[in-house]
Amino acid sequence: MSPKITTELLKQLRQVMKNPRYVQEPVQAYIVPSGDAHQSEYIAPCDCRRAFISGFDGSAGTAIVTEQQAAMWTDGRYFLQAAHQMDSNWTLMKMGLKDTPTQEDWLVSVLPEGSKVGVDPFIIPADQWKRMSKALRSAGHDLVPVKENLIDTIWTDCPQRPCKPLITLDLSYTGVSWRDKIVALRSKMAERKVMWFVVTALDEVAWLFNLRGSDVEYNPVFFAYAVIGMNTIRLFIDGDRMMDPAVREHLQLDSTLEPEFKIQVMPYGSILSELQAVGAGLSPKEKVWLSDKASYALTEAIPKAYRYLTPYTPICIAKAVKNAAETEGMRRAHIKDAVALCELFNWLEKEVPKGTVTEILAADKAEEFRSQQKDFVELSFATISSTGPNGAIIHYKPVPETNRTLSVNEIYLLDSGAQYKDGTTDVTRTMHFGTPSAYEKECFTYVLKGHIAVSAAIFPNGTKGHLLDSFARSALWDCGLDYLHGTGHGVGSFLNVHEGPCGISYKTFADEPLEAGMIVSDEPGYYEDGSFGIRIENVVLVIPAETKYNFKNRGSLTFEPLTLVPIQTKMIDVNLLTEKECNWVNEYHQKCREVVGAELERQGRHEALRWLLRETEPLGRVQ
Amino acid sequence: MSPKITTELLKQLRQVMKNPRYVQEPVQAYIVPSGDAHQSEYIAPCDCRRAFISGFDGSAGTAIVTEQQAAMWTDGRYFLQAAHQMDSNWTLMKMGLKDTPTQEDWLVSVLPEGSKVGVDPFIIPADQWKRMSKALRSAGHDLVPVKENLIDTIWTDCPQRPCKPLITLDLSYTGVSWRDKIVALRSKMAERKVMWFVVTALDEVAWLFNLRGSDVEYNPVFFAYAVIGMNTIRLFIDGDRMMDPAVREHLQLDSTLEPEFKIQVMPYGSILSELQAVGAGLSPKEKVWLSDKASYALTEAIPKAYRYLTPYTPICIAKAVKNAAETEGMRRAHIKDAVALCELFNWLEKEVPKGTVTEILAADKAEEFRSQQKDFVELSFATISSTGPNGAIIHYKPVPETNRTLSVNEIYLLDSGAQYKDGTTDVTRTMHFGTPSAYEKECFTYVLKGHIAVSAAIFPNGTKGHLLDSFARSALWDCGLDYLHGTGHGVGSFLNVHEGPCGISYKTFADEPLEAGMIVSDEPGYYEDGSFGIRIENVVLVIPAETKYNFKNRGSLTFEPLTLVPIQTKMIDVNLLTEKECNWVNEYHQKCREVVGAELERQGRHEALRWLLRETEPLGRVQ
Repeated sequence: MSPKITTELLKQLRQVMKNPRYVQEPVQAYIVPSGDAHQSEYIAPCDCRRAFISGFDGSAGTAIVTEQQAAMWTDGRYFLQAAHQMDSNWTLMKMGLKDTPTQEDWLVSVLPEGSKVGVDPFIIPADQWKRMSKALRSAGHDLVPVKENLIDTIWTDCPQRPCKPLITLDLSYTGVSWRDKIVALRSKMAERKVMWFVVTALDEVAWLFNLRGSDVEYNPVFFAYAVIGMNTIRLFIDGDRMMDPAVREHLQLDSTLEPEFKIQVMPYGSILSELQAVGAGLSPKEKVWLSDKASYALTEAIPKAYRYLTPYTPICIAKAVKNAAETEGMRRAHIKDAVALCELFNWLEKEVPKGTVTEILAADKAEEFRSQQKDFVELSFATISSTGPNGAIIHYKPVPETNRTLSVNEIYLLDSGAQYKDGTTDVTRTMHFGTPSAYEKECFTYVLKGHIAVSAAIFPNGTKGHLLDSFARSALWDCGLDYLHGTGHGVGSFLNVHEGPCGISYKTFADEPLEAGMIVSDEPGYYEDGSFGIRIENVVLVIPAETKYNFKNRGSLTFEPLTLVPIQTKMIDVNLLTEKECNWVNEYHQKCREVVGAELERQGRHEALRWLLRETEPLGRVQ
Repeated sequence: MSPKITTELLKQLRQVMKNPRYVQEPVQAYIVPSGDAHQSEYIAPCDCRRAFISGFDGSAGTAIVTEQQAAMWTDGRYFLQAAHQMDSNWTLMKMGLKDTPTQEDWLVSVLPEGSKVGVDPFIIPADQWKRMSKALRSAGHDLVPVKENLIDTIWTDCPQRPCKPLITLDLSYTGVSWRDKIVALRSKMAERKVMWFVVTALDEVAWLFNLRGSDVEYNPVFFAYAVIGMNTIRLFIDGDRMMDPAVREHLQLDSTLEPEFKIQVMPYGSILSELQAVGAGLSPKEKVWLSDKASYALTEAIPKAYRYLTPYTPICIAKAVKNAAETEGMRRAHIKDAVALCELFNWLEKEVPKGTVTEILAADKAEEFRSQQKDFVELSFATISSTGPNGAIIHYKPVPETNRTLSVNEIYLLDSGAQYKDGTTDVTRTMHFGTPSAYEKECFTYVLKGHIAVSAAIFPNGTKGHLLDSFARSALWDCGLDYLHGTGHGVGSFLNVHEGPCGISYKTFADEPLEAGMIVSDEPGYYEDGSFGIRIENVVLVIPAETKYNFKNRGSLTFEPLTLVPIQTKMIDVNLLTEKECNWVNEYHQKCREVVGAELERQGRHEALRWLLRETEPLGRVQ
């Protein structure tokens, strides 16, 4: 990696920062955040503005350019990468280190008195705007919205915004029609006495209309907004995608419909002016519902007194609770995914000893096996294929410079998943293709105990996921070990592999309570810098639990693993397991055998089936 | 309980709400909160204004009186009591029920346009003021500070503010002199670049100056404020308490001291004007540090740009970490407390079968035994002495109307504690003086498992207490049971039995990380309405833990029980315990025998010693 030379670009940017064509008054600083206008986790090439101006293309980072300086804030995952990718024009601000100033503090320390700080109001979420604006104002500066994105004005070869064809999903996948979803949404709106709901997150638009796209990598979404009124539906979307007869039929664009279900299709770029028109026409007590993470531009379109902001939208919450059709789809997707992984691990077992399998090859092979499965669409995130010390880099993605060869002497960690038309997968297995050391087995077993503690936990209805996080750590803590990431995230149904509003993490307290039908990951780990990484991840479904008693008639919940891939028994120190834990492993493996075995049989994958049967032999306790 | 007749009082209050002698403009509503000017948990009789105006004297409640109506907000603990104590002038607002409006919503619904809502700015904390003021303003009303408390103007026989003598604590109790505490505080102030610190919480004033008082029940504090500058110390306190030679010597009031340690004693009532003078004299960048729970009046005395507000003050955090002298004092206090309880339980065992012991008598007897111990000062909270169904009322306090007789057929729950000059205790034991049912034993054992899970937990340095809460519930959850309160609270050292900033509760996320030297309670329970209550509470000290490994050199922590009172083995279903849990109970009881046994021997309490030895026989596992 050689750094990007940015001297000329920064010069151009500093010119437009003063150019009255773009700014009402010159701005002394310009903020370039990571995100797109929808706060997406994965962004399209045309939205990679921070990478364009700085060279640093990690997933998280904020650039700020002043008349004299250029600084980049990013977190510990990216310190090395950012340092390599940026030239000497840039100062790296290492977030999380004690002496690193916040963006606000840094701005206040370098700006001349009474400065203007510019930002694209479509990219910055309203809650961030509020925080930053307040900090700047109290130091005598102003945060100002710059309508035209200044990076775009100098980015001469900026790629086009993607506009790929849409996929329509019928009831067999979604369980509920878009009409019924609109009805349910309007009833939530009526409950809160709001007249309008603005859909800004891409996965929420996709879910609401039972459509999928491929405008960004990994997340099957498309660029669009929607504004739902009590009697109107407006969909803001570009391109000829609405000309596709399948889409027209799916959305009933050419049918005679009751007016309240008639979808008005409008250009993607007209959302602001349309929303301003809505805002201008409100009568007293007519509220407009927005996510508090919606962009500053859209939030400002609605006069403050009329805004109804919540951290989680009713769509986010409804989407998290999967119905029977979605759950069945997720089950099917996970069985296919397990078939692919049985093939992969069987193949690795044979090939690794030859010394020819690299991390990248293993990742490609995993994708190849997955792509053979029915309804495969794409991967659900960049495969983490890591061996030995690379396994300790939690968000590692193999590239030619780091690509390591798998061997019988190192632990191999594979965290991967796919989008199938019927569901989204995300699974991590940690394997040894030789003989693991006693210490490696010990650590693996603590992680397994944590995985089981969450998976087998029984807890009252209404419990928030973060209350389960410590269960995953208890066995590690007992020995002085831990891992520095959360334990689980919500998983979409042929949608984003990371979705709210639930999760299992010590860091989140704003999560919504777990409910039967929600789907989360369970993925404790243990990482030893420079040596190895261990993680065991299943996607699990929240289900009702039968209990001996039923306090206050609240009912109880537990988890059912959807992921059905063997956990390598060679890595387990059976003597560290309790009888209950041992039974859990054996019952889990029995289910893998039955369910995935039948599918391997059906697909005629006999060698992989033999591998599965061998890997799921019951554990025998020695004690 | 017959309700208080408030017709005349309300009429008088409504008159003063319009009387220009007290209000600049008439107020259409007046808020009467529960608290005093220091946000104390226990308040003095002169501060029981809400009880005076309404008759309702529970510990939590807010009264609002408008020209037409009077309403009282309180929570589930007090619905019945409030309904009994208030006459028909009052509407009870049951907090926590779905249809109950918030105070703001209710005010907005009943007030005429453009109303003024008055409140005593000394009683309302700044954060509450902000929330309420914003809600009212957005509906076109104004929250206004009414300097003179309107209740006080009509409360003709209002008791005097207490002004009891002070106790001075020497280094053998406190470990650190008040001078050294001031030095440490000033160094924290310098770190944060603040010039002044305002001490508003009564226990913080008491801790800082190594003084104790008895102005309110249970909490050994006295009415005072302090303002600490980098070179000045001002103590705001009334009465002739500063004439006491012991106090004068302790504070070195008559010595020649470096000016920065010279304490200026000022009248309690002059705090506001003095603080306003400080506020007026600030140069740019001179900040004043206040708790965000300080009163609106004091917060407003400092211009907004100069305020530095934090949820926990540096004194709150320093006070929570006990030094060696305090820890030793707490140990001594808990041994004496255990002696008293061994005496009590031995006495109960003999007396209960006779049918003559009521809840009140048992509570009195507990106090009697405690008062025989050295350095006993008073109880640390109102004793919860409850048998049978009364045990299910979590905050029960026996009164003649509810007083039940202990019997060999019911579970007895005693939650009690005391203030000794060397420490504060808080212990709950649940006993059966006959033969408990299998179900009662089962429930007790789940609670015990939860108690042990927290007490024996090992966790990394830096862990917040709320992450341990689920450990206490896991065994109950497995069977569909739970309890609806937190698991633990911070405990002061001869100070408030409930103190921040740490605790163990699913409800708190703003707690500070646990540190070696902090002291908290561990008190899971199980309650069956109309039938029984179970709780097992020890006070535990956070201590470093030895672990096999040491991830990132963070170090680990665990708990050491300070409470050393036998847990009734008769109530334990041994077959539900793991081997580890069984060993924990046996080792705990062994320690009770050794430590408390020696003290009982020393005090010549032979019968209680025999009881202790009998109650601490090792558990034998049947399996």
